[in-house]
Amino acid sequence: MKLLEERILRDGIVRDGGVLKVDSFLNHQMDVALLSDIADEFKRLFSGCGVNKILTIEASGIAIACFVAQRFSCPLVFAKKNKTLNVSPDVWTTKVHSFTHQRDFDIIVSKAFLGQGDCVLLIDDFLANGEALSGLIDLVRQSGAALAGAGICIEKAFQPGGERIRAEGVRVESLARIRSMDPEKGIEFC
Amino acid sequence: MKLLEERILRDGIVRDGGVLKVDSFLNHQMDVALLSDIADEFKRLFSGCGVNKILTIEASGIAIACFVAQRFSCPLVFAKKNKTLNVSPDVWTTKVHSFTHQRDFDIIVSKAFLGQGDCVLLIDDFLANGEALSGLIDLVRQSGAALAGAGICIEKAFQPGGERIRAEGVRVESLARIRSMDPEKGIEFC
Repeated sequence: MKLLEERILRDGIVRDGGVLKVDSFLNHQMDVALLSDIADEFKRLFSGCGVNKILTIEASGIAIACFVAQRFSCPLVFAKKNKTLNVSPDVWTTKVHSFTHQRDFDIIVSKAFLGQGDCVLLIDDFLANGEALSGLIDLVRQSGAALAGAGICIEKAFQPGGERIRAEGVRVESLARIRSMDPEKGIEFC
Repeated sequence: MKLLEERILRDGIVRDGGVLKVDSFLNHQMDVALLSDIADEFKRLFSGCGVNKILTIEASGIAIACFVAQRFSCPLVFAKKNKTLNVSPDVWTTKVHSFTHQRDFDIIVSKAFLGQGDCVLLIDDFLANGEALSGLIDLVRQSGAALAGAGICIEKAFQPGGERIRAEGVRVESLARIRSMDPEKGIEFC
């Protein structure tokens, strides 16, 4: 998606260690006009797939997922990062490893809001190692819902998540795929 | 707002201890058509106030705030709940007590995204003891931004937050104000 790539080039900041800061428009401060255009693109890509539920993970995925849910006229559900040790029997749950925070955490979705009859489009802002996305896929599979695919804003294609998840047969559509990035040499898209 | 009150009566579940579950439409699964109507109402209420930034707190406030930001054609910023002990000098920060989780946590907003020249409308799904909202107000004051007010979906008017914050001179508009609620007697609005 040209518009997103241009915005990343203009306002994204590359840091050492494979970090791309896009917090001025995507995941801390949010440009809702851009998010709305992104939602249009996901609607175009997954139109005709029978999507009737959007699933994302807190927190920064929620904003994008909202507009996508509006386009598909369907509910949005967000998986919560569980802070407590007690997991209710009323939830689907799985473990996700965070490379950023160097720890595992549980993500949960109430069974009341994900199950058979749902055709789910997953939405997230980033795909890198794919831990969060794999966790969401696991929740969908546990629930018996159908999976239409995943819509990602920015994929770090030099990290293994996208390749691994596509190899599992999941349709992953990333609007901006970064082949390489470097604080000095800048960003190269696929 | 009649539409929200009716929805709370239809789908909200009152639990012991002053707990109102609205997670089927407002803060876990989200009815984006309802959120869009809620955003229209906040636009009507705060129209002409010069609002040029929406501020909320992760996670469940983000969905509502997205649509509000769209109505005001302005950016949305969400305060993050900080999990690390190190606070960067580049952020506004304050401490918030959570009665739900029985602990204090820090909330942060990057200084790059909140400051003089901003006229801020605060958005959140719930107002009860007012801890989160007071935290957001503190961030706005630290930053030197102007505060247009706060738009709240559901206020538990039997808890002290709303009264205390209005007494400080902040304009608080709550779309549904609950006077009392009880698992057996049900919900009474103000």
